[in-house]
Amino acid sequence: MEQIGFESVRTNDIPLAEQVAAQISELIVEKRLTSEDKLPNEFELASMLNVGRGTIREAVKLLVARNVLIIRRGKGTYIAHHPGEISDPLGFAYFPDQLQLGFDLLEVRLNLEPWIARVAAERATDEEIAVMNQNCRTVEQDILSGKNHLPNDTEFHISIANCMHNLVAPKLIPIITYSVGLFGSLNGNTLLSETIVGHRAIADAISAHDPDQAEKSMRTHIEQNLDELKAIRQELLEST
Amino acid sequence: MEQIGFESVRTNDIPLAEQVAAQISELIVEKRLTSEDKLPNEFELASMLNVGRGTIREAVKLLVARNVLIIRRGKGTYIAHHPGEISDPLGFAYFPDQLQLGFDLLEVRLNLEPWIARVAAERATDEEIAVMNQNCRTVEQDILSGKNHLPNDTEFHISIANCMHNLVAPKLIPIITYSVGLFGSLNGNTLLSETIVGHRAIADAISAHDPDQAEKSMRTHIEQNLDELKAIRQELLEST
Repeated sequence: MEQIGFESVRTNDIPLAEQVAAQISELIVEKRLTSEDKLPNEFELASMLNVGRGTIREAVKLLVARNVLIIRRGKGTYIAHHPGEISDPLGFAYFPDQLQLGFDLLEVRLNLEPWIARVAAERATDEEIAVMNQNCRTVEQDILSGKNHLPNDTEFHISIANCMHNLVAPKLIPIITYSVGLFGSLNGNTLLSETIVGHRAIADAISAHDPDQAEKSMRTHIEQNLDELKAIRQELLEST
Repeated sequence: MEQIGFESVRTNDIPLAEQVAAQISELIVEKRLTSEDKLPNEFELASMLNVGRGTIREAVKLLVARNVLIIRRGKGTYIAHHPGEISDPLGFAYFPDQLQLGFDLLEVRLNLEPWIARVAAERATDEEIAVMNQNCRTVEQDILSGKNHLPNDTEFHISIANCMHNLVAPKLIPIITYSVGLFGSLNGNTLLSETIVGHRAIADAISAHDPDQAEKSMRTHIEQNLDELKAIRQELLEST
């Protein structure tokens, strides 16, 4: 297929380094450079794009800041693992009302994740089920050994979305689970045993290719999170 | 409420400019600086954070690249309109199979947007309905006058999500409608009249606070997009 969906805009309003960053991005897309591929060096890029090395260096910095490129000291510049994907891409950290954000994220999750679990149960391969169950066990071990389980909790939800065979759904999980860690310090971990039981019910239903049960278990799990957040709001109201 | 959900990590593995960028971000969150507020100048920041001005300058560049800050020539550095929110945050432009991406986006939209339309019909205020209807008319005018209607098409879908009173849903719309413009050059605009009729049906149902009809109209609209994408895939298969 031809290169589509990518058009660099060149006007005098846009700083030169931005224009060159867009051209380097096009180059990555055109040459189908992917994770771990090496970018041509500064000299080559400067001659390919007909700009100075200083501009190339500025453009590379922009693309590093956007997680398109990573610099390996002494080795060169490489394509990032998931080029262009950044953490907190919607700027949730800058939202003034983090409690309301938590409620609104859970409202979206209640629509999206039970459906994801349902489709995952329909489409999951044995290999994907094995990865999901491994992630489920890792979260359990984290909780039982008193470690912070939240990074692996998100990984568990991503591995469910991976069972859907949809390119977009797994990318949405880190966004909509942003709130998971927000109130950890407040809730005194009362959710931890519910998390173990809830995750296990979801994993079992997907493993058994039972869409109805997978959807229902995921809904129950997220509703427990919602109840917990309501309790936290109550605590906050009473403490002020 | 106390500052939550934001913890800067300081280790020697992280470049100094990155650490300072995180500190400036914290400052923005703590001081509740929002869109259009001015950032303290380089001297002030350097003295507040106890680093050199060169480091401040590097950190500011990182935050400009991430759309947290914007520089107004001769005026200073300001907080961006939607700080931290960048276009194409999931790096869709770097996905090798753009056609599959289009299908997978539509699968997600078919789950998410009929629900958004339903809740919008339940919660919309008169003012929000007026904005949505204005956006609907703007898209119609764009189409009838032969202009590219896609930017305003996305605005229309965002204004529906705004009727939900959920902080997250409107932010997801630009992500999941990424594909809208991808195949515009291929489909010869056969969808344009369906777009006018489809949008109008959705806007009318939300204006009438009819959740069932709003959900149904949105589903029909996205299914038409899906049919169109299937026709495009067929064309591409036949042309190769």
